[in-house]
Amino acid sequence: MVLLTDGLELLDEQECRSLLSQRRIGRVGVCVGAMPAIFPVSYVIVDDDIVFLSAPGTKVRAAVEHAVVAFEVDDADDDHETGWSVLVVGRAEEVHDEAFGARAEAAGLHPWLPGRHCLIRVSTDVVSGCRI
Amino acid sequence: MVLLTDGLELLDEQECRSLLSQRRIGRVGVCVGAMPAIFPVSYVIVDDDIVFLSAPGTKVRAAVEHAVVAFEVDDADDDHETGWSVLVVGRAEEVHDEAFGARAEAAGLHPWLPGRHCLIRVSTDVVSGCRI
Repeated sequence: MVLLTDGLELLDEQECRSLLSQRRIGRVGVCVGAMPAIFPVSYVIVDDDIVFLSAPGTKVRAAVEHAVVAFEVDDADDDHETGWSVLVVGRAEEVHDEAFGARAEAAGLHPWLPGRHCLIRVSTDVVSGCRI
Repeated sequence: MVLLTDGLELLDEQECRSLLSQRRIGRVGVCVGAMPAIFPVSYVIVDDDIVFLSAPGTKVRAAVEHAVVAFEVDDADDDHETGWSVLVVGRAEEVHDEAFGARAEAAGLHPWLPGRHCLIRVSTDVVSGCRI
């Protein structure tokens, strides 16, 4: 934990990973060409990787074609003006390994919508976070 | 409102702008080079633009140098597996107009941390949203 002079506390990697494991909803940030986009997803952690399901479409295409994505979780208290956020930058790939899919399901992952879904895994190569 | 076959409801622009005006915390997505990043911000709407404060740093640099950013607000109910999200893609610029700053402050914008802040305005050129 590093307390900066302006009231912003930098979180170390262990705290960031702990916070990541406590949440279920995060946001995926992708660059499609030079255009950024953000999508909320329901996720679980398996082997330190972020795992979520996605219907075939922008997220999957970006994940597979563009490889590097951002993933963010946060918690903000607007009344008390406190909060934290954790940002991951990692490589995304579609996973076809059924055993891995079963582990993600055992961790609580399941689709919110019917239809075909792709299993996406994002490595947590760079993890950073801060708290106000 | 367009109800798709898979349970996903597309929101029209009016609904998206209404939802945008009801929230106070959103996430800014930027591409720094080819690398995506996401930052939570406290924001207000002024003249249909998204307005937030930022300490000088990544967000501001990206906003001013890279111009196009994503902005996302959402609300998810993990228990009931329902939720909505609204995504804006627009041009970001630092605002030096004191009258505009006063209007943002009147709308409720103020810094969560002490120190110098830049006023950032994001145009809402492209607005889309969906509800599960």
